[in-house]
Amino acid sequence: MTRSPSSNAELALLLEVAATPTPGNVDRCTDHPTLRFEHFLAGAVGARPGLERAERTGVIGAAFRDAIAGMADQRGGNTQFGALLLVIPLLVAAKRAAMHTTGLTAITQSTTVTDAIAFYRAFEYVDVLVGDPPRDAPDLDVRRGEQAAPALRSTGTTLADVMAMAASHDDVAREWTSGFERSFHAADLIDRATGSALERGAYAHLRLLSDRPDTLIATKYGEDVAISVQQRAQSTVQTNGDPQQLAEWLVEQEYNPGATADILVAGYLIALERGLQV
Amino acid sequence: MTRSPSSNAELALLLEVAATPTPGNVDRCTDHPTLRFEHFLAGAVGARPGLERAERTGVIGAAFRDAIAGMADQRGGNTQFGALLLVIPLLVAAKRAAMHTTGLTAITQSTTVTDAIAFYRAFEYVDVLVGDPPRDAPDLDVRRGEQAAPALRSTGTTLADVMAMAASHDDVAREWTSGFERSFHAADLIDRATGSALERGAYAHLRLLSDRPDTLIATKYGEDVAISVQQRAQSTVQTNGDPQQLAEWLVEQEYNPGATADILVAGYLIALERGLQV
Repeated sequence: MTRSPSSNAELALLLEVAATPTPGNVDRCTDHPTLRFEHFLAGAVGARPGLERAERTGVIGAAFRDAIAGMADQRGGNTQFGALLLVIPLLVAAKRAAMHTTGLTAITQSTTVTDAIAFYRAFEYVDVLVGDPPRDAPDLDVRRGEQAAPALRSTGTTLADVMAMAASHDDVAREWTSGFERSFHAADLIDRATGSALERGAYAHLRLLSDRPDTLIATKYGEDVAISVQQRAQSTVQTNGDPQQLAEWLVEQEYNPGATADILVAGYLIALERGLQV
Repeated sequence: MTRSPSSNAELALLLEVAATPTPGNVDRCTDHPTLRFEHFLAGAVGARPGLERAERTGVIGAAFRDAIAGMADQRGGNTQFGALLLVIPLLVAAKRAAMHTTGLTAITQSTTVTDAIAFYRAFEYVDVLVGDPPRDAPDLDVRRGEQAAPALRSTGTTLADVMAMAASHDDVAREWTSGFERSFHAADLIDRATGSALERGAYAHLRLLSDRPDTLIATKYGEDVAISVQQRAQSTVQTNGDPQQLAEWLVEQEYNPGATADILVAGYLIALERGLQV
Protein backbone atom coordinates (compact mmCIF):
# COMPACT_ATOMS: atom_id res chain seq x y z
CA MET A 1 0.00 0.00 0.00
CA THR A 2 1.57 3.30 -1.09
CA ARG A 3 1.18 6.40 1.03
CA SER A 4 -1.21 9.00 -0.37
CA PRO A 5 -0.10 12.64 -0.78
CA SER A 6 -1.89 13.57 2.45
CA SER A 7 -0.12 10.73 4.29
CA ASN A 8 3.21 11.89 2.89
CA ALA A 9 2.41 15.45 3.95
CA GLU A 10 1.72 14.34 7.50
CA LEU A 11 4.84 12.19 7.53
CA ALA A 12 6.87 15.16 6.29
CA LEU A 13 5.67 17.19 9.30
CA LEU A 14 6.72 14.36 11.62
CA LEU A 15 10.11 13.75 10.00
CA GLU A 16 11.00 17.45 10.22
CA VAL A 17 10.40 17.64 13.94
CA ALA A 18 12.15 14.30 14.54
CA ALA A 19 15.29 15.11 12.51
CA THR A 20 18.12 16.07 14.88
CA PRO A 21 20.01 18.25 15.34
CA THR A 22 18.02 21.02 13.63
CA PRO A 23 19.77 23.84 15.47
CA GLY A 24 17.42 26.27 17.18
CA ASN A 25 14.25 24.27 16.63
CA VAL A 26 12.33 21.67 18.61
CA ASP A 27 13.57 18.26 17.50
CA ARG A 28 13.86 14.66 18.66
CA CYS A 29 16.39 15.74 21.32
CA THR A 30 15.27 19.30 22.03
CA ASP A 31 12.25 20.91 23.65
CA HIS A 32 11.66 24.61 24.15
CA PRO A 33 10.23 25.67 27.51
CA THR A 34 6.59 25.87 26.41
CA LEU A 35 6.82 24.28 22.97
CA ARG A 36 7.59 20.60 23.11
CA PHE A 37 8.03 17.65 20.80
CA GLU A 38 4.62 16.16 21.57
CA HIS A 39 2.93 19.43 20.56
CA PHE A 40 4.28 18.88 17.05
CA LEU A 41 3.09 15.26 17.05
CA ALA A 42 -0.41 16.39 18.00
CA GLY A 43 -0.17 19.28 15.53
CA ALA A 44 0.61 16.91 12.65
CA VAL A 45 -2.16 14.47 13.59
CA GLY A 46 -4.63 17.31 14.07
CA ALA A 47 -3.81 18.77 10.65
CA ARG A 48 -4.64 15.49 8.94
CA PRO A 49 -8.34 16.10 8.18
CA GLY A 50 -7.37 19.39 6.50
CA LEU A 51 -4.69 17.62 4.48
CA GLU A 52 -7.22 15.02 3.38
CA ARG A 53 -9.67 17.76 2.40
CA ALA A 54 -6.97 19.33 0.21
CA GLU A 55 -6.28 15.97 -1.42
CA ARG A 56 -9.97 15.27 -1.97
CA THR A 57 -11.10 18.69 -3.20
CA GLY A 58 -8.03 20.59 -4.39
CA VAL A 59 -9.44 23.66 -2.61
CA ILE A 60 -6.55 25.42 -0.89
CA GLY A 61 -8.02 27.99 1.51
CA ALA A 62 -10.69 25.93 3.26
CA ALA A 63 -8.35 22.94 3.57
CA PHE A 64 -5.68 25.18 5.10
CA ARG A 65 -8.15 26.62 7.60
CA ASP A 66 -9.24 23.10 8.60
CA ALA A 67 -5.63 21.98 8.93
CA ILE A 68 -4.84 24.93 11.21
CA ALA A 69 -7.97 24.40 13.31
CA GLY A 70 -6.90 20.79 13.86
CA MET A 71 -3.24 21.63 14.36
CA ALA A 72 -4.14 24.10 17.09
CA ASP A 73 -5.76 21.40 19.27
CA GLN A 74 -2.70 21.06 21.54
CA ARG A 75 -1.16 23.26 24.20
CA GLY A 76 2.03 24.40 22.45
CA GLY A 77 0.45 27.07 20.27
CA ASN A 78 1.65 27.57 16.71
CA THR A 79 3.58 24.51 15.68
CA GLN A 80 3.19 24.18 11.91
CA PHE A 81 1.31 27.16 10.44
CA GLY A 82 3.95 28.06 7.86
CA ALA A 83 4.72 24.45 7.04
CA LEU A 84 1.04 23.78 6.28
CA LEU A 85 0.91 26.81 4.01
CA LEU A 86 3.54 25.08 1.87
CA VAL A 87 2.37 21.53 2.26
CA ILE A 88 -1.21 22.10 1.11
CA PRO A 89 -0.47 23.39 -2.42
CA LEU A 90 2.33 20.81 -2.68
CA LEU A 91 0.05 17.89 -1.89
CA VAL A 92 -2.59 19.17 -4.29
CA ALA A 93 0.16 19.27 -6.92
CA ALA A 94 1.24 15.73 -6.00
CA LYS A 95 -2.32 14.50 -6.32
CA ARG A 96 -2.45 16.00 -9.85
CA ALA A 97 1.01 14.70 -10.78
CA ALA A 98 1.99 18.35 -11.19
CA MET A 99 4.71 18.70 -8.58
CA HIS A 100 6.92 21.05 -10.55
CA THR A 101 7.31 24.83 -10.87
CA THR A 102 4.71 25.19 -13.62
CA GLY A 103 2.16 22.99 -11.88
CA LEU A 104 2.58 24.75 -8.56
CA THR A 105 2.39 28.19 -10.14
CA ALA A 106 -0.89 27.19 -11.81
CA ILE A 107 -2.26 25.97 -8.47
CA THR A 108 -1.26 29.04 -6.45
CA GLN A 109 -2.33 31.47 -9.18
CA SER A 110 -5.77 29.88 -9.34
CA THR A 111 -6.52 30.71 -5.70
CA THR A 112 -9.43 33.08 -5.14
CA VAL A 113 -10.75 35.72 -2.76
CA THR A 114 -12.59 32.89 -0.98
CA ASP A 115 -9.25 31.17 -0.40
CA ALA A 116 -7.86 34.43 0.99
CA ILE A 117 -10.78 34.80 3.41
CA ALA A 118 -10.32 31.21 4.65
CA PHE A 119 -6.61 31.92 5.12
CA TYR A 120 -7.41 34.98 7.24
CA ARG A 121 -9.84 32.92 9.29
CA ALA A 122 -7.05 30.49 10.10
CA PHE A 123 -5.39 33.25 12.15
CA GLU A 124 -8.30 33.05 14.58
CA TYR A 125 -7.21 29.60 15.76
CA VAL A 126 -3.65 30.33 16.78
CA ASP A 127 -1.22 33.19 17.46
CA VAL A 128 1.14 33.55 14.53
CA LEU A 129 4.08 35.91 14.47
CA VAL A 130 3.86 37.92 11.26
CA GLY A 131 5.27 41.16 9.94
CA ASP A 132 3.25 44.35 9.50
CA PRO A 133 0.99 44.63 6.45
CA PRO A 134 1.92 46.98 3.60
CA ARG A 135 1.46 50.61 4.73
CA ASP A 136 -1.03 51.26 1.98
CA ALA A 137 -3.18 48.25 2.97
CA PRO A 138 -3.77 48.31 6.74
CA ASP A 139 -7.23 46.76 6.22
CA LEU A 140 -5.51 43.60 4.98
CA ASP A 141 -3.58 42.96 8.19
CA VAL A 142 -3.86 39.18 8.65
CA ARG A 143 -4.20 39.69 12.37
CA ARG A 144 -7.70 41.06 11.73
CA GLY A 145 -8.85 37.53 10.91
CA GLU A 146 -12.32 37.30 9.45
CA GLN A 147 -12.87 41.04 9.97
CA ALA A 148 -10.67 41.62 6.95
CA ALA A 149 -13.15 39.79 4.71
CA PRO A 150 -14.95 42.94 3.41
CA ALA A 151 -11.60 44.54 2.50
CA LEU A 152 -10.46 41.36 0.74
CA ARG A 153 -13.72 41.23 -1.21
CA SER A 154 -13.80 44.90 -2.16
CA THR A 155 -10.21 44.83 -3.39
CA GLY A 156 -10.57 41.41 -5.07
CA THR A 157 -7.51 40.15 -3.20
CA THR A 158 -6.79 36.46 -3.80
CA LEU A 159 -4.63 34.22 -1.60
CA ALA A 160 -1.89 34.48 -4.24
CA ASP A 161 -2.09 38.29 -3.90
CA VAL A 162 -1.80 38.03 -0.10
CA MET A 163 1.32 35.89 -0.48
CA ALA A 164 2.82 38.30 -3.03
CA MET A 165 2.44 41.17 -0.53
CA ALA A 166 4.39 39.20 2.10
CA ALA A 167 7.01 37.61 -0.15
CA SER A 168 9.68 40.24 0.46
CA HIS A 169 9.88 39.59 4.20
CA ASP A 170 8.49 36.05 4.61
CA ASP A 171 10.22 33.08 3.04
CA VAL A 172 7.11 30.91 3.24
CA ALA A 173 5.13 33.45 1.19
CA ARG A 174 8.16 33.72 -1.12
CA GLU A 175 7.75 30.05 -2.04
CA TRP A 176 4.30 30.87 -3.38
CA THR A 177 5.75 33.51 -5.72
CA SER A 178 8.85 31.57 -6.79
CA GLY A 179 7.36 28.22 -7.82
CA PHE A 180 8.55 26.69 -4.54
CA GLU A 181 12.19 27.14 -5.49
CA ARG A 182 13.68 26.60 -2.05
CA SER A 183 11.34 23.70 -1.28
CA PHE A 184 12.72 21.88 -4.33
CA HIS A 185 16.23 22.84 -3.25
CA ALA A 186 15.53 21.34 0.18
CA ALA A 187 14.34 18.12 -1.49
CA ASP A 188 17.56 18.03 -3.53
CA LEU A 189 19.60 18.41 -0.34
CA ILE A 190 17.67 15.53 1.26
CA ASP A 191 18.21 13.38 -1.86
CA ARG A 192 21.91 14.23 -2.01
CA ALA A 193 22.60 13.56 1.67
CA THR A 194 23.46 10.13 3.05
CA GLY A 195 22.12 8.14 5.96
CA SER A 196 18.64 7.67 7.35
CA ALA A 197 15.69 9.87 6.45
CA LEU A 198 16.24 11.78 9.71
CA GLU A 199 19.97 12.28 9.17
CA ARG A 200 19.24 13.63 5.71
CA GLY A 201 16.89 16.22 7.16
CA ALA A 202 19.45 17.40 9.69
CA TYR A 203 21.97 17.91 6.87
CA ALA A 204 19.42 19.82 4.78
CA HIS A 205 18.39 22.03 7.71
CA LEU A 206 21.97 23.20 8.29
CA ARG A 207 22.51 23.92 4.60
CA LEU A 208 19.23 25.85 4.34
CA LEU A 209 20.12 27.87 7.43
CA SER A 210 23.43 28.84 5.85
CA ASP A 211 21.78 29.78 2.52
CA ARG A 212 19.55 32.68 3.60
CA PRO A 213 18.68 34.63 6.75
CA ASP A 214 15.68 32.99 8.41
CA THR A 215 12.71 35.34 8.01
CA LEU A 216 10.98 34.27 11.25
CA ILE A 217 14.11 35.29 13.18
CA ALA A 218 14.25 38.52 11.15
CA THR A 219 10.62 39.35 12.01
CA LYS A 220 11.18 38.61 15.70
CA TYR A 221 14.69 39.99 16.30
CA GLY A 222 15.58 42.02 13.20
CA GLU A 223 17.48 41.38 10.00
CA ASP A 224 20.90 41.77 11.65
CA VAL A 225 20.24 38.90 14.02
CA ALA A 226 18.96 36.72 11.17
CA ILE A 227 22.16 37.44 9.23
CA SER A 228 24.34 36.60 12.22
CA VAL A 229 22.56 33.24 12.56
CA GLN A 230 23.09 32.58 8.86
CA GLN A 231 26.80 33.44 9.22
CA ARG A 232 27.26 31.06 12.15
CA ALA A 233 25.56 28.33 10.12
CA GLN A 234 27.85 29.09 7.16
CA SER A 235 30.87 28.84 9.40
CA THR A 236 29.64 25.49 10.76
CA VAL A 237 29.23 24.19 7.20
CA GLN A 238 32.59 25.57 5.99
CA THR A 239 34.63 24.28 8.93
CA ASN A 240 32.69 21.01 9.07
CA GLY A 241 31.91 22.06 12.64
CA ASP A 242 29.64 20.46 15.21
CA PRO A 243 26.01 21.52 14.58
CA GLN A 244 25.41 20.74 18.26
CA GLN A 245 27.45 23.82 19.24
CA LEU A 246 25.41 25.96 16.87
CA ALA A 247 22.27 24.42 18.39
CA GLU A 248 23.35 25.29 21.93
CA TRP A 249 24.07 28.90 21.00
CA LEU A 250 20.70 29.27 19.25
CA VAL A 251 18.77 27.76 22.16
CA GLU A 252 20.60 30.02 24.61
CA GLN A 253 19.66 33.09 22.53
CA GLU A 254 16.13 31.70 21.95
CA TYR A 255 16.54 32.18 18.20
CA ASN A 256 14.37 29.63 16.42
CA PRO A 257 14.63 29.45 12.64
CA GLY A 258 11.02 28.57 12.04
CA ALA A 259 10.87 29.58 8.36
CA THR A 260 13.76 27.22 7.66
CA ALA A 261 11.84 24.43 9.40
CA ASP A 262 8.83 25.15 7.18
CA ILE A 263 10.96 24.85 4.04
CA LEU A 264 12.39 21.59 5.33
CA VAL A 265 8.89 20.13 5.77
CA ALA A 266 8.15 21.09 2.15
CA GLY A 267 11.44 19.48 1.07
CA TYR A 268 10.57 16.27 2.90
CA LEU A 269 7.17 16.11 1.20
CA ILE A 270 8.72 16.54 -2.25
CA ALA A 271 11.40 13.95 -1.43
CA LEU A 272 8.80 11.45 -0.17
CA GLU A 273 6.74 11.93 -3.33
CA ARG A 274 9.91 11.31 -5.37
CA GLY A 275 10.44 8.05 -3.50
CA LEU A 276 12.50 8.79 -0.38
CA GLN A 277 12.43 5.60 1.69
CA VAL A 278 11.80 5.68 5.42
CA MET B 1 -11.76 21.19 16.49
CA THR B 2 -11.72 18.02 18.58
CA ARG B 3 -9.66 15.04 17.49
CA SER B 4 -11.70 12.13 16.15
CA PRO B 5 -11.20 8.60 17.56
CA SER B 6 -8.98 7.70 14.58
CA SER B 7 -6.87 10.83 15.18
CA ASN B 8 -6.56 9.94 18.84
CA ALA B 9 -5.58 6.39 17.88
CA GLU B 10 -2.82 7.65 15.61
CA LEU B 11 -1.66 10.12 18.24
CA ALA B 12 -1.57 7.29 20.80
CA LEU B 13 0.80 5.36 18.53
CA LEU B 14 3.04 8.43 18.25
CA LEU B 15 3.01 9.28 21.96
CA GLU B 16 3.99 5.71 22.89
CA VAL B 17 7.08 5.71 20.69
CA ALA B 18 8.02 9.25 21.78
CA ALA B 19 7.68 8.65 25.53
CA THR B 20 11.12 8.14 27.06
CA PRO B 21 12.58 6.19 28.69
CA THR B 22 10.47 3.14 27.88
CA PRO B 23 13.18 0.64 28.80
CA GLY B 24 13.95 -1.91 26.10
CA ASN B 25 11.85 -0.29 23.38
CA VAL B 26 12.51 2.21 20.62
CA ASP B 27 11.71 5.65 21.97
CA ARG B 28 12.49 9.32 21.50
CA CYS B 29 16.09 8.71 22.64
CA THR B 30 16.60 5.09 21.55
CA ASP B 31 16.89 3.28 18.23
CA HIS B 32 17.46 -0.43 17.74
CA PRO B 33 19.96 -1.40 15.03
CA THR B 34 17.39 -2.05 12.28
CA LEU B 35 14.25 -0.67 13.92
CA ARG B 36 14.33 3.06 14.30
CA PHE B 37 12.16 5.90 15.54
CA GLU B 38 11.20 7.06 12.05
CA HIS B 39 9.89 3.58 11.21
CA PHE B 40 7.30 4.04 13.94
CA LEU B 41 6.40 7.51 12.66
CA ALA B 42 5.83 6.09 9.17
CA GLY B 43 4.02 3.07 10.67
CA ALA B 44 1.56 5.32 12.49
CA VAL B 45 0.92 7.51 9.45
CA GLY B 46 0.56 4.46 7.21
CA ALA B 47 -1.97 2.87 9.56
CA ARG B 48 -4.20 5.93 9.37
CA PRO B 49 -6.44 4.89 6.45
CA GLY B 50 -7.17 1.61 8.28
CA LEU B 51 -7.98 3.52 11.45
CA GLU B 52 -10.35 5.76 9.50
CA ARG B 53 -11.99 2.73 7.95
CA ALA B 54 -12.60 1.31 11.42
CA GLU B 55 -14.11 4.61 12.54
CA ARG B 56 -16.31 4.88 9.47
CA THR B 57 -17.53 1.27 9.22
CA GLY B 58 -17.04 -0.35 12.61
CA VAL B 59 -15.76 -3.44 10.77
CA ILE B 60 -12.77 -4.77 12.70
CA GLY B 61 -11.01 -7.32 10.48
CA ALA B 62 -10.82 -5.43 7.19
CA ALA B 63 -9.84 -2.21 8.95
CA PHE B 64 -7.08 -4.04 10.79
CA ARG B 65 -5.76 -5.59 7.57
CA ASP B 66 -5.71 -2.12 5.91
CA ALA B 67 -3.96 -0.62 8.92
CA ILE B 68 -1.27 -3.30 8.80
CA ALA B 69 -0.82 -2.98 5.04
CA GLY B 70 -0.23 0.75 5.49
CA MET B 71 1.91 0.34 8.61
CA ALA B 72 4.20 -2.03 6.75
CA ASP B 73 5.16 0.62 4.17
CA GLN B 74 8.49 1.42 5.84
CA ARG B 75 11.77 -0.43 6.18
CA GLY B 76 11.72 -1.33 9.88
CA GLY B 77 9.35 -4.29 9.62
CA ASN B 78 6.75 -4.89 12.30
CA THR B 79 6.35 -1.71 14.30
CA GLN B 80 2.78 -1.66 15.61
CA PHE B 81 0.96 -4.92 14.78
CA GLY B 82 -0.09 -5.71 18.35
CA ALA B 83 -0.87 -2.10 19.16
CA LEU B 84 -3.23 -1.87 16.17
CA LEU B 85 -5.00 -5.03 17.28
CA LEU B 86 -5.94 -3.18 20.47
CA VAL B 87 -6.47 0.25 18.99
CA ILE B 88 -9.00 -0.78 16.35
CA PRO B 89 -11.69 -2.21 18.67
CA LEU B 90 -10.97 0.63 21.12
CA LEU B 91 -11.57 3.34 18.55
CA VAL B 92 -14.74 1.63 17.34
CA ALA B 93 -15.87 1.66 20.98
CA ALA B 94 -14.94 5.35 21.29
CA LYS B 95 -16.94 6.17 18.19
CA ARG B 96 -19.97 4.43 19.73
CA ALA B 97 -19.42 6.04 23.15
CA ALA B 98 -18.97 2.48 24.44
CA MET B 99 -15.43 2.59 25.73
CA HIS B 100 -15.98 0.36 28.75
CA THR B 101 -15.68 -3.35 29.48
CA THR B 102 -19.24 -4.16 28.42
CA GLY B 103 -19.02 -2.14 25.21
CA LEU B 104 -15.69 -3.63 24.23
CA THR B 105 -16.82 -7.16 24.98
CA ALA B 106 -19.85 -6.62 22.75
CA ILE B 107 -17.60 -5.34 19.95
CA THR B 108 -15.05 -8.14 20.13
CA GLN B 109 -17.70 -10.85 20.56
CA SER B 110 -19.51 -9.63 17.45
CA THR B 111 -16.49 -10.31 15.23
CA THR B 112 -17.03 -12.94 12.53
CA VAL B 113 -15.21 -15.55 10.46
CA THR B 114 -14.71 -12.81 7.83
CA ASP B 115 -12.91 -10.72 10.45
CA ALA B 116 -10.73 -13.72 11.27
CA ILE B 117 -9.81 -14.23 7.61
CA ALA B 118 -8.88 -10.55 7.24
CA PHE B 119 -6.76 -10.83 10.39
CA TYR B 120 -4.88 -13.81 8.94
CA ARG B 121 -4.33 -11.89 5.71
CA ALA B 122 -2.64 -9.13 7.68
CA PHE B 123 0.20 -11.57 8.42
CA GLU B 124 1.08 -11.51 4.74
CA TYR B 125 2.24 -7.89 4.95
CA VAL B 126 4.79 -8.19 7.72
CA ASP B 127 6.76 -10.73 9.78
CA VAL B 128 5.22 -11.02 13.22
CA LEU B 129 6.69 -13.06 16.03
CA VAL B 130 3.94 -15.30 17.39
CA GLY B 131 3.71 -18.44 19.46
CA ASP B 132 2.79 -21.84 18.04
CA PRO B 133 -0.90 -22.55 17.43
CA PRO B 134 -2.79 -24.97 19.69
CA ARG B 135 -1.58 -28.55 18.99
CA ASP B 136 -5.07 -29.64 18.03
CA ALA B 137 -5.45 -26.82 15.48
CA PRO B 138 -2.33 -26.69 13.26
CA ASP B 139 -4.47 -25.54 10.31
CA LEU B 140 -5.17 -22.32 12.20
CA ASP B 141 -1.52 -21.26 12.45
CA VAL B 142 -1.65 -17.52 11.74
CA ARG B 143 1.59 -17.81 9.82
CA ARG B 144 -0.36 -19.57 7.07
CA GLY B 145 -1.98 -16.24 6.17
CA GLU B 146 -4.83 -16.48 3.71
CA GLN B 147 -4.20 -20.23 3.24
CA ALA B 148 -5.88 -20.75 6.60
CA ALA B 149 -9.17 -19.35 5.25
CA PRO B 150 -10.79 -22.74 4.44
CA ALA B 151 -9.95 -24.05 7.93
CA LEU B 152 -11.36 -20.87 9.52
CA ARG B 153 -14.54 -21.22 7.47
CA SER B 154 -15.06 -24.95 8.07
CA THR B 155 -14.56 -24.56 11.82
CA GLY B 156 -16.60 -21.34 12.01
CA THR B 157 -13.72 -19.63 13.82
CA THR B 158 -14.32 -15.92 14.51
CA LEU B 159 -11.66 -13.34 15.30
CA ALA B 160 -12.78 -13.47 18.95
CA ASP B 161 -12.17 -17.26 18.86
CA VAL B 162 -8.68 -16.72 17.42
CA MET B 163 -7.87 -14.29 20.23
CA ALA B 164 -9.25 -16.69 22.85
CA MET B 165 -6.87 -19.40 21.59
CA ALA B 166 -3.87 -17.09 22.02
CA ALA B 167 -4.89 -15.38 25.27
CA SER B 168 -2.91 -17.68 27.57
CA HIS B 169 0.44 -16.75 26.03
CA ASP B 170 -0.15 -13.37 24.37
CA ASP B 171 -1.12 -10.34 26.42
CA VAL B 172 -2.54 -8.50 23.41
CA ALA B 173 -4.97 -11.36 22.72
CA ARG B 174 -5.68 -11.46 26.47
CA GLU B 175 -7.07 -7.93 26.29
CA TRP B 176 -9.68 -9.18 23.85
CA THR B 177 -10.86 -11.80 26.37
CA SER B 178 -10.66 -9.62 29.48
CA GLY B 179 -12.58 -6.53 28.37
CA PHE B 180 -9.28 -4.65 27.88
CA GLU B 181 -8.50 -4.79 31.58
CA ARG B 182 -4.83 -3.87 31.35
CA SER B 183 -5.48 -1.19 28.73
CA PHE B 184 -7.79 0.57 31.20
CA HIS B 185 -5.20 0.04 33.92
CA ALA B 186 -2.59 1.69 31.65
CA ALA B 187 -4.93 4.65 31.13
CA ASP B 188 -5.37 4.93 34.91
CA LEU B 189 -1.58 4.97 35.33
CA ILE B 190 -1.30 7.75 32.72
CA ASP B 191 -4.06 9.72 34.46
CA ARG B 192 -2.49 9.26 37.87
CA ALA B 193 1.03 10.24 36.80
CA THR B 194 2.28 13.83 36.73
CA GLY B 195 4.08 15.85 34.11
CA SER B 196 3.76 16.05 30.34
CA ALA B 197 1.89 13.48 28.26
CA LEU B 198 5.23 11.85 27.42
CA GLU B 199 6.44 11.73 31.03
CA ARG B 200 3.17 10.07 32.01
CA GLY B 201 3.71 7.36 29.41
CA ALA B 202 7.22 6.62 30.67
CA TYR B 203 5.84 6.18 34.20
CA ALA B 204 3.05 3.90 32.98
CA HIS B 205 5.47 1.78 30.91
CA LEU B 206 7.66 1.03 33.92
CA ARG B 207 4.68 0.15 36.08
CA LEU B 208 3.21 -2.13 33.42
CA LEU B 209 6.56 -3.84 32.96
CA SER B 210 6.71 -4.55 36.69
CA ASP B 211 3.11 -5.88 36.76
CA ARG B 212 3.40 -8.92 34.50
CA PRO B 213 6.05 -10.75 32.42
CA ASP B 214 6.05 -9.32 28.90
CA THR B 215 4.63 -12.00 26.57
CA LEU B 216 6.65 -10.90 23.53
CA ILE B 217 9.85 -11.46 25.51
CA ALA B 218 8.46 -14.79 26.76
CA THR B 219 7.71 -15.93 23.18
CA LYS B 220 11.18 -14.91 22.00
CA TYR B 221 13.39 -15.86 24.94
CA GLY B 222 11.23 -17.99 27.25
CA GLU B 223 9.13 -17.36 30.33
CA ASP B 224 12.15 -17.28 32.69
CA VAL B 225 13.68 -14.35 30.84
CA ALA B 226 10.34 -12.51 30.83
CA ILE B 227 10.09 -13.02 34.60
CA SER B 228 13.62 -11.77 35.17
CA VAL B 229 12.79 -8.59 33.20
CA GLN B 230 9.65 -8.12 35.29
CA GLN B 231 11.69 -8.56 38.49
CA ARG B 232 14.26 -5.96 37.42
CA ALA B 233 11.41 -3.55 36.64
CA GLN B 234 9.85 -4.26 40.06
CA SER B 235 13.16 -3.57 41.74
CA THR B 236 13.47 -0.27 39.83
CA VAL B 237 9.98 0.74 40.96
CA GLN B 238 10.51 -0.36 44.59
CA THR B 239 13.90 1.34 45.00
CA ASN B 240 12.82 4.39 42.99
CA GLY B 241 15.79 3.51 40.79
CA ASP B 242 16.92 5.01 37.51
CA PRO B 243 14.89 3.54 34.60
CA GLN B 244 17.82 4.49 32.38
CA GLN B 245 19.90 1.72 33.96
CA LEU B 246 17.13 -0.77 33.34
CA ALA B 247 16.95 0.52 29.76
CA GLU B 248 20.67 -0.02 29.20
CA TRP B 249 20.54 -3.59 30.49
CA LEU B 250 17.53 -4.42 28.30
CA VAL B 251 19.13 -2.92 25.18
CA GLU B 252 22.36 -4.82 25.87
CA GLN B 253 20.41 -8.08 26.15
CA GLU B 254 18.20 -7.13 23.18
CA TYR B 255 15.09 -7.80 25.25
CA ASN B 256 12.26 -5.61 23.95
CA PRO B 257 8.99 -5.65 25.87
CA GLY B 258 6.77 -5.21 22.83
CA ALA B 259 3.54 -6.46 24.41
CA THR B 260 3.94 -3.84 27.14
CA ALA B 261 4.34 -1.17 24.46
CA ASP B 262 1.12 -2.34 22.81
CA ILE B 263 -0.78 -2.03 26.09
CA LEU B 264 0.67 1.45 26.59
CA VAL B 265 -0.63 2.55 23.18
CA ALA B 266 -4.08 1.29 24.18
CA GLY B 267 -3.78 3.15 27.49
CA TYR B 268 -2.86 6.37 25.69
CA LEU B 269 -5.89 6.06 23.41
CA ILE B 270 -8.24 5.58 26.36
CA ALA B 271 -6.62 8.48 28.22
CA LEU B 272 -6.89 10.77 25.17
CA GLU B 273 -10.55 9.88 24.77
CA ARG B 274 -11.05 10.69 28.45
CA GLY B 275 -9.49 14.10 27.88
CA LEU B 276 -5.73 13.79 28.40
CA GLN B 277 -4.25 17.08 27.19
CA VAL B 278 -1.17 17.16 24.97
